[in-house]
Amino acid sequence: MTTKKLSFSAQTVSYYFDASFDYLEKLVKTDNAVIITDENIFSANKKKFANWRTIVLQPGEAFKIQATVDSIIQQLIELGADRKTTLIGVGGGVVTDITGYVAGIYMRGLQFGFVPTTILAMVDASIGGKNGIDVGIYKNMVGMIKQPSFLLYDYSLLKSLPKAEWINGFAEIIKHASIKDAAMFKLLEEHKLTAFRKDKQLLDQLIRRNALLKSKVVQEDEFEQGDRKLLNFGHTLGHAIENSYDLSHGHAVALGMVVAAGISAVYTGYAETNRLVKLIKQYGLPAFAVFDAEKAMQVMQSDKKRVKDLIHYVLLQKTGKAVIMPLTAEQIAPIVKKLSV
Amino acid sequence: MTTKKLSFSAQTVSYYFDASFDYLEKLVKTDNAVIITDENIFSANKKKFANWRTIVLQPGEAFKIQATVDSIIQQLIELGADRKTTLIGVGGGVVTDITGYVAGIYMRGLQFGFVPTTILAMVDASIGGKNGIDVGIYKNMVGMIKQPSFLLYDYSLLKSLPKAEWINGFAEIIKHASIKDAAMFKLLEEHKLTAFRKDKQLLDQLIRRNALLKSKVVQEDEFEQGDRKLLNFGHTLGHAIENSYDLSHGHAVALGMVVAAGISAVYTGYAETNRLVKLIKQYGLPAFAVFDAEKAMQVMQSDKKRVKDLIHYVLLQKTGKAVIMPLTAEQIAPIVKKLSV
Repeated sequence: MTTKKLSFSAQTVSYYFDASFDYLEKLVKTDNAVIITDENIFSANKKKFANWRTIVLQPGEAFKIQATVDSIIQQLIELGADRKTTLIGVGGGVVTDITGYVAGIYMRGLQFGFVPTTILAMVDASIGGKNGIDVGIYKNMVGMIKQPSFLLYDYSLLKSLPKAEWINGFAEIIKHASIKDAAMFKLLEEHKLTAFRKDKQLLDQLIRRNALLKSKVVQEDEFEQGDRKLLNFGHTLGHAIENSYDLSHGHAVALGMVVAAGISAVYTGYAETNRLVKLIKQYGLPAFAVFDAEKAMQVMQSDKKRVKDLIHYVLLQKTGKAVIMPLTAEQIAPIVKKLSV
Repeated sequence: MTTKKLSFSAQTVSYYFDASFDYLEKLVKTDNAVIITDENIFSANKKKFANWRTIVLQPGEAFKIQATVDSIIQQLIELGADRKTTLIGVGGGVVTDITGYVAGIYMRGLQFGFVPTTILAMVDASIGGKNGIDVGIYKNMVGMIKQPSFLLYDYSLLKSLPKAEWINGFAEIIKHASIKDAAMFKLLEEHKLTAFRKDKQLLDQLIRRNALLKSKVVQEDEFEQGDRKLLNFGHTLGHAIENSYDLSHGHAVALGMVVAAGISAVYTGYAETNRLVKLIKQYGLPAFAVFDAEKAMQVMQSDKKRVKDLIHYVLLQKTGKAVIMPLTAEQIAPIVKKLSV
């Protein structure tokens, strides 16, 4: 196991890489903690949860809503959870987003930690303190930014992760490489997904590199005034089509990255779209799809990151180097249209 | 007008005492703000709101619930509120609690300010950044601590405040005097409520003294690890009986202060219960009432301030000096029983 501590504005986050789930009992007293997880994870790991009080959610983004929050709050009241209780989210991004949000508002705030169980959660969703729920078609419309106390990585939890979910997670890994880490981009080009699935040491290095890359970006800009915005690369269009077409997050982000690359080609002179498309395909992700460009533009314009009439688009200058450019809908629409067929 | 700025952990709060409502337009651009208020305040001050986009709530604590939050969020989405929008709560404690909470979670956090319209909100509810909603019988079960950017005091808004609401507010003023300010306790003894209602300068001084007293306690202990807990004087029992008997907050706190004084007499040797009872009655508040002591003890034990099996009770040593004592239910129950008939 490797441990690492990083300080954020009001909180120190401890990272336990290559750890065992059982180590949780050393971090938190079982009698003053409540685990929040979902049915899939619970039924695949029943023995692990035996010593813990556990709230089990229905799995999936469709349940990342206020009704689920209401239900968790009722269960916490019934369990007698108080201000000294620690909540532990064990799951993918939906579980960690809801757990962080409930911990932020129950009795005006409890301590909390995460055990991410998907690649996506390990390298992205569980890091950075953004939490929340969806409201109608608007993803993460309600929530807050609040850091967990700890993140525990037990790679054995990935054994039951379907291949499609591995692929999903690699979209964010490719994103990190594209905006901040040209050497990792090259490393990814040199391997295939199977290598990371088989070689635990190779995987540990990749997870840690991504977790710390994202953590450092967040640490320097927790409240998204500057560099943290770069992490939205591929997400502006990605979010706009994800719910409408019931896409996986990874597929939506992959398509979004290719559109952002196309916009970059026009506005920054970025010239490596083909290289990005090749890597995206190498990890089983889609680079192009047919979608309704007009509808996507509409949703984009109601995104919470919009400020007045400008869309702050994350563009690439070259592999490993991203910039933010405020663009009007009129500047973006023709390129989105061209790439939507 | 007098202005004052105090810095909290992550926010500077500006206070505008003896100001005019119209001054709001100097603080916030009307086209990028949304006022949240209730039907009573809206209909009594229609002209004042003419330039502002306004969300009007049904009045009363019964609406300080998640359904109201859901409705505000829908209206904010429809109004196109974005991350640069400022929310302004104009009203009593219910309005400011909900406004602060929605501002804390909408799009993961907006700027917000308050224009308190009751004595209670001016000296207490709008100060300190505690916000939230009730869940079933549990007051403020969900919420967070987040400071507003500004507080604007326009005493002309008190013209339509019923006498019962003036009395309500003076319960918190007596509380402040009891725990922290023996000189103010004396000042209150020397006057009657009518004096403060008639003499604007006297009122301004009293409001300012209370607002800054509470602000300084909060500033030194924003997250309630120490001194801030003293502000709960009278509230442990107060909260336990307020909802069950549909009492006003002021009446509940007044009764709670007398019970706390009775407990103080046993555990700290406090000897001024009669003086406190006299002042409470002088301002039209009740000192004694018949209530179900057993039920009150039950609710007290599920209060969110409870940590494990101890109730942290705020007691007086003398007028102007409070302490916190962890007591068991068994230590409290006989005294509560004695004072409940």
